[in-house]
Amino acid sequence: MSTRPHLATTQAELKEASAELLRTAAGRHRSGRASQGLVPTMGALHAGHAALVRAARAANDVVVASIFVNPLQFGEAADLDRYPRTLEADLDVLAAAGADIAFAPAVEEVYPGGEPLVRVCAGALGEKLEGASRPGHFDGALTVVAKLLHYGLPALPADYRAYFGQKDAQQLALVRRMVADLDFPVEIVGVPLVRDADGLALSSRNRFLSAAEREAALVLPRSLHYLQGQARRNEPLDIPGALAMIASVPQVQLDYLEVVDPDTLEPLAFNCQDTPFTGQALALVAARVGKVRLIDNVRLGE
Amino acid sequence: MSTRPHLATTQAELKEASAELLRTAAGRHRSGRASQGLVPTMGALHAGHAALVRAARAANDVVVASIFVNPLQFGEAADLDRYPRTLEADLDVLAAAGADIAFAPAVEEVYPGGEPLVRVCAGALGEKLEGASRPGHFDGALTVVAKLLHYGLPALPADYRAYFGQKDAQQLALVRRMVADLDFPVEIVGVPLVRDADGLALSSRNRFLSAAEREAALVLPRSLHYLQGQARRNEPLDIPGALAMIASVPQVQLDYLEVVDPDTLEPLAFNCQDTPFTGQALALVAARVGKVRLIDNVRLGE
Repeated sequence: MSTRPHLATTQAELKEASAELLRTAAGRHRSGRASQGLVPTMGALHAGHAALVRAARAANDVVVASIFVNPLQFGEAADLDRYPRTLEADLDVLAAAGADIAFAPAVEEVYPGGEPLVRVCAGALGEKLEGASRPGHFDGALTVVAKLLHYGLPALPADYRAYFGQKDAQQLALVRRMVADLDFPVEIVGVPLVRDADGLALSSRNRFLSAAEREAALVLPRSLHYLQGQARRNEPLDIPGALAMIASVPQVQLDYLEVVDPDTLEPLAFNCQDTPFTGQALALVAARVGKVRLIDNVRLGE
Repeated sequence: MSTRPHLATTQAELKEASAELLRTAAGRHRSGRASQGLVPTMGALHAGHAALVRAARAANDVVVASIFVNPLQFGEAADLDRYPRTLEADLDVLAAAGADIAFAPAVEEVYPGGEPLVRVCAGALGEKLEGASRPGHFDGALTVVAKLLHYGLPALPADYRAYFGQKDAQQLALVRRMVADLDFPVEIVGVPLVRDADGLALSSRNRFLSAAEREAALVLPRSLHYLQGQARRNEPLDIPGALAMIASVPQVQLDYLEVVDPDTLEPLAFNCQDTPFTGQALALVAARVGKVRLIDNVRLGE
């Protein structure tokens, strides 16, 4: 059995617990310089989150995982209410993956004055893809990530890294952009997404799929891997073919399938060309399966 | 003669210079905890800026003053081009006021990727008063302040404070709000504005006033002090009287005269009432004198 992480619910507790662990760790380093990794989550942890924590564990002396369901990034109150809260199970996942500190603040700790007036704005990069169907979502997400990145600042001189899943590709691109544009003193590390044995990307929302819906949803990774195979063989990408695969499954309502630049998320022109695939791209898909909205992506090229 | 501050033009130089000074300072403290004060400026320094630096000097071991004319907060390119750049004279002002480090980065150091995509948005508080005539101004100002607050983070464990003038009352209120809403690990200190012997609030723009315009501009502090006297005596505020004073000077085009809550900058209802003044307020005025836009303010109540 792994030990439960230290549970902190206030910023002061987090700072104190981190300072103590960093002090001990600094003694072990010749340079006296330790490192701290932050893994921001909304709880409902699965093996994808565990991979984030393990990546942080492998590279840092102190690993902090935050658990906070951020009201600011939910469009509808119902969606926020429905979001699963599973703190006890989450702490077990964090323990097994090796987190030192679990930071699980109440809403009042994060937003003591109610909704923030001054926010981070995602700009144009936040308006497309996921942003198109969720207005304001990325402003809310970046605003809370800005806060969490400040909470997680090491209390002693230390390298500082924060870990985000490549599953939420647009969020990862926006967080990288925010950190560069606003000069947060942190290195952002993207961690590959994790799939279940049947190929479906892990998501806290998968629990809401019926068995039949889950079976239907598998067309999403299948269509992405179809494109990935073509990219690997430097063939032209058959986007119409991938779209037809998805269209053939009536339970799946496609929102978008896009091949984009991995950094800017600008659409690339592969889908109207017969040119062989070269370079690097990201294939992104979003669809509704029953009442559940799913996203998935694969890297194209190496 | 005071020594010139150490001039840093890159973030790495700033960090190194600050770390060295903090290390020395920490040795002098029983707690081993030093302090750093940041004074963000756009250069063209006058006695108002010197007061900011002296306030920082009085409370911190290490004082960093930044000099950066932020293109993002200028509406028109012409206004940006016209903004005075006087680095040599600025360094003398900083030396006399006791700054340790002058951080004067080039535009490329602050915006290596061109204009930022992800920004800080001031929200409703940034749209009124100054924001009404300068759309986007406060978004640009807060975005660069966010960057500067990150640059100025102490490299060693230290208390961290940043100093802003009460002259730019709306900017100060917004910076305070940003720091609270996004949890920047810094204490914001507001420093009283400084007036010339004739009563005009110091501003880098005053140099553009002709002698006659300057004489005319004095109606702005006069109208504010008229209200301040009434507030001090707990009389009703005679806003129409103050407006009439300004209207009687034809060279002065009033933009606004408002009595507002000092924190939220929400208008207070004094101007339509016969009730005696109590509590706390801020009287703000903005006007154009010739081609020069001036702002001024006084505190009402104690």
